[in-house]
Amino acid sequence: MQTYKAPLNDMKFILRDFINSESNSLLKNSDIDLSDLEMILEEASKLCEEKLLPLNQSGDEEGCKYENGNVNTPKGFKEIYREFVDNGWQGLTVNKKYGGQELPYFMNMFLDEMISSSNMSFGLYPGLTSNAIDAIEKSASDEIKDLYLPKLASGEWSGTMNLTEPHCGTDLGLTKTIANPQNDGSYKLSGTKIFITCGEHDMSKNIIHLVLAKTPNCPKGIKGISLFVVPKIIPKKDGSLGERNNLECGSIEKKMGINASPTCVMHYNEATGWLVGDLHKGMKAMFIMMNGARLMVGVQGLGIAEIAYQSALNYAKERLQGRSLKGSKNLDKDADPILVHPEIRKSLLKIKTLTEGLRGLMLWTGLQVDIAKKEKDKFKKQNADDWVSLMTPILKSFATDVGCEASNLAVQIYGGHGYIKDHGIEQLVRDSRITPIYEGTNGIQALDLVGRKMPLHTGRLLKAFFHLVKEYIEKNSFNYNLKDFMPSLTKSFNRLQQVTAYIASTGLKDPDEASGPASDYLKMFALVATAYVWTRYAEIAFNKLNNDPNGFYLAKINSGKYFMTKILPETGSIMSSILSGAKTYNDFEDSHFDSAFKL
Amino acid sequence: MQTYKAPLNDMKFILRDFINSESNSLLKNSDIDLSDLEMILEEASKLCEEKLLPLNQSGDEEGCKYENGNVNTPKGFKEIYREFVDNGWQGLTVNKKYGGQELPYFMNMFLDEMISSSNMSFGLYPGLTSNAIDAIEKSASDEIKDLYLPKLASGEWSGTMNLTEPHCGTDLGLTKTIANPQNDGSYKLSGTKIFITCGEHDMSKNIIHLVLAKTPNCPKGIKGISLFVVPKIIPKKDGSLGERNNLECGSIEKKMGINASPTCVMHYNEATGWLVGDLHKGMKAMFIMMNGARLMVGVQGLGIAEIAYQSALNYAKERLQGRSLKGSKNLDKDADPILVHPEIRKSLLKIKTLTEGLRGLMLWTGLQVDIAKKEKDKFKKQNADDWVSLMTPILKSFATDVGCEASNLAVQIYGGHGYIKDHGIEQLVRDSRITPIYEGTNGIQALDLVGRKMPLHTGRLLKAFFHLVKEYIEKNSFNYNLKDFMPSLTKSFNRLQQVTAYIASTGLKDPDEASGPASDYLKMFALVATAYVWTRYAEIAFNKLNNDPNGFYLAKINSGKYFMTKILPETGSIMSSILSGAKTYNDFEDSHFDSAFKL
Repeated sequence: MQTYKAPLNDMKFILRDFINSESNSLLKNSDIDLSDLEMILEEASKLCEEKLLPLNQSGDEEGCKYENGNVNTPKGFKEIYREFVDNGWQGLTVNKKYGGQELPYFMNMFLDEMISSSNMSFGLYPGLTSNAIDAIEKSASDEIKDLYLPKLASGEWSGTMNLTEPHCGTDLGLTKTIANPQNDGSYKLSGTKIFITCGEHDMSKNIIHLVLAKTPNCPKGIKGISLFVVPKIIPKKDGSLGERNNLECGSIEKKMGINASPTCVMHYNEATGWLVGDLHKGMKAMFIMMNGARLMVGVQGLGIAEIAYQSALNYAKERLQGRSLKGSKNLDKDADPILVHPEIRKSLLKIKTLTEGLRGLMLWTGLQVDIAKKEKDKFKKQNADDWVSLMTPILKSFATDVGCEASNLAVQIYGGHGYIKDHGIEQLVRDSRITPIYEGTNGIQALDLVGRKMPLHTGRLLKAFFHLVKEYIEKNSFNYNLKDFMPSLTKSFNRLQQVTAYIASTGLKDPDEASGPASDYLKMFALVATAYVWTRYAEIAFNKLNNDPNGFYLAKINSGKYFMTKILPETGSIMSSILSGAKTYNDFEDSHFDSAFKL
Repeated sequence: MQTYKAPLNDMKFILRDFINSESNSLLKNSDIDLSDLEMILEEASKLCEEKLLPLNQSGDEEGCKYENGNVNTPKGFKEIYREFVDNGWQGLTVNKKYGGQELPYFMNMFLDEMISSSNMSFGLYPGLTSNAIDAIEKSASDEIKDLYLPKLASGEWSGTMNLTEPHCGTDLGLTKTIANPQNDGSYKLSGTKIFITCGEHDMSKNIIHLVLAKTPNCPKGIKGISLFVVPKIIPKKDGSLGERNNLECGSIEKKMGINASPTCVMHYNEATGWLVGDLHKGMKAMFIMMNGARLMVGVQGLGIAEIAYQSALNYAKERLQGRSLKGSKNLDKDADPILVHPEIRKSLLKIKTLTEGLRGLMLWTGLQVDIAKKEKDKFKKQNADDWVSLMTPILKSFATDVGCEASNLAVQIYGGHGYIKDHGIEQLVRDSRITPIYEGTNGIQALDLVGRKMPLHTGRLLKAFFHLVKEYIEKNSFNYNLKDFMPSLTKSFNRLQQVTAYIASTGLKDPDEASGPASDYLKMFALVATAYVWTRYAEIAFNKLNNDPNGFYLAKINSGKYFMTKILPETGSIMSSILSGAKTYNDFEDSHFDSAFKL
């Protein structure tokens, strides 16, 4: 059974103990305090546990229905969406000027994690709207902002992103959709976009599409791309709805999962749109928004991992099967709960420690988004922005891989019962499987890390991270409390530095030598960053042990020890693999790939 | 698009070059030779490529339909089944006495691999029949054999295995189905069995269920279990069909995948059955057969990995997206095929080298099954049997994990197109996901390896493997051809020995210390065994390079180098993780598992 209680203990720990020093200064001049934030988390948890979770399996089973250009969402979705937006959740972090509540960005991460745990498909509707708000707020003219943002922030209208075309996903330079300028300053867009999440549905009164297209005679490749806002129904100047635009949903895809959210083929046939940002700077506008979107996909991975963990733990406590090898623990019953078996414990601790470690890294990064936005001090602002740039590909990739692994481990713990649909566990595998793909595949994220973030500003982003961890290690090397943490953190950190130097130097000679190990390097980086978080958790927890009635802090320390001894060692084999070079695959002859079956 | 050509080049290499010395002596006194075997493989490949593959996606989409106790298979399945059995494939390795062709067991592995690649759901029907044949042949009375085996070998009737009940899967000691003895020597069985693959369908004229049940007042737990043959329609003595038995399919499960094969709830209501083997020795009879079944599930993993590889490779050659970092390779087109990207090459080589390495290990093990059966020399017979016992849990687990990983890598290479149903790639993920679960979860296999096979005959099974590899290393340490193989084989082999000693010694003090790392140990063992196979492949290939017109042998050597440098190093991190002990998870307090969300 899908089981979910929002991990409020852990979220509050992160708020109070982990990001408190910096978040306090962020909240200093606002009218909200820590207890307000906690209250909001509690409200969000109720919505997710009580309203969204019960629709997760039924939404998957029923799916979206397409008929004559319209898309009907599964039973109950419209009602919950109404409640969701009426309670102001869509505008949680949006500027007050546009009707939002202007809470810190990291609060959206907490909210999105809970939504992703309880109903990932549902979360895509408000999620895509948030992306659209972000793109418009950051790049559009005031006129467009004033017209669209209040309606989007209230959830009366929803939003989408239109990038992919049948022949191009990653390589958007191949875009064929054309935007012809009109005399009134608008454009007429024609072309077909695919894989458009929530491109058409019955939940909101209008759908605002942000569409990448090329103008006639524009520069070649991605340098010719511009971004346009193309509403389904063209709003009048006062925001009321006018004429239907010339765009239509042609069909929806049959997918592996996230079946309660429609993935649409969108046809634009001389549809009216308006430029967002500068002409031919569409990729820039898209990327500003995409960074936020990528972090949010990482949060989806985290959310799926959490519900996978809780569902599996619940089953492991209830399912009686076999006996503990050390002697029965449940003598009045015919068998012991499977939680007694080491294999089950390891699988659960793997998910638990990856999830909790990543949650801290994610929220810390979310806080840096806020600091980069609000901080006056130029140096601190830049530092925060650097951190976000560095961590975005790492979190997107690693957290989504963790989400997939967690849901597969949960299926394994359920055994045959995990494979049938009744329990809703296989749904987690199917839903999570999209997250390493969309918003740039995890392979692309790794190239972003190695090819862009690593050399950026002559390595400034990485140096800042290395400096932070190095300083921490120097300060805590002789901290007796951390004796089970510091040696392995130090060892893995040294490995990361060594591999970084190797990649940086070989990459100068041969770009394929640097891009080859990109995914491995990203994983190594993520493991070391997560180990750093766990060590800091442990440091905090040791100082709280004298007031730990529920064992929360002791659990943190012991979970951390599991991570450091059982998960972190993988950095060793990744290093060996990277240091053996890229020749074995880069120089592998193309014709040899099919040697086994070529006739 | 699902793409599949049987890997005949590789299969013939295994036949001619890899298992030839031992298989030749096996065939010595028979009327078949190597070229007969190759011809059979070619015939099988046509059936799989031309008939089974085209029904794979349609079968998944349509699924099986349940109505009033009957199960209808998807369109086309009945016809192909008829062709399959009419051409004698069901009886390929069955005793001639019962109408089979009595070919070596390893030929069934090749056949099953092809079937699993092209249509895993279809393969379950004849696969379960093979299991039933195996159980009856090895344990039943001559009367039962003579009545059932000819009909099963011809495929006129099909078979099933009935183990699981709602409250017990792994722990069969909890079985509740009861078998009451009758005066005529038969039994009346009552109870409910679940997860019965192909328990009811419209392909064969009769379905023969092998059912585990307890007799009244039998010993407690698994020692009280007996095995019964319970036909759907009770045959008369001459083999013609008589009365319908009192058993019924109550429903079929909605599953994640393998949708073209029904997973049935079976109700037995005073159904007539006959004892197979000795009373209360049902587990023994079941396990004799289960070993074969487990190897065959491993073969399914291998088969899925192969079609995942070929489908992904095909796409990687056709999909144009982005440019090679080293400069464009496809200047007349807008983009290069994604095969130019190192990340794609690595993913493909990972599948290719794991699949080809495992194929050799699998077939070598299949050959040992034949030797254990036919060999007259007691020592050689025992050696072969030991090898099979040792490798069965390793191959079942590792090959199925590889199948799952391969299909996920294929989805990733397809990107968004892998997530939608059209291309049939996500189906591979859904179909393969059952293989680490059924026939004993992979966690159970690992316990079998560490808890049973390791201590068996005071370590005789492991010693034989260690001796073989050690001797090989000593003989080839200075083989210049193998300079890229021997050091890494030796290093990983030493690690395996060290970890084996550690587990054996700690396990004596605390069984949970040995069972804890069981899965990790199994993976390490599989990697080292596969590395041994790749080194032997390389040794063979180097000697053939002077006559290698298609580059097959050169491809083998270069694939092997990839495996040794990129896949094998994981043994290092597995060792670190195991040697750090089991305390962090075994001593983790149960109440701490839900520390993050407990209220």
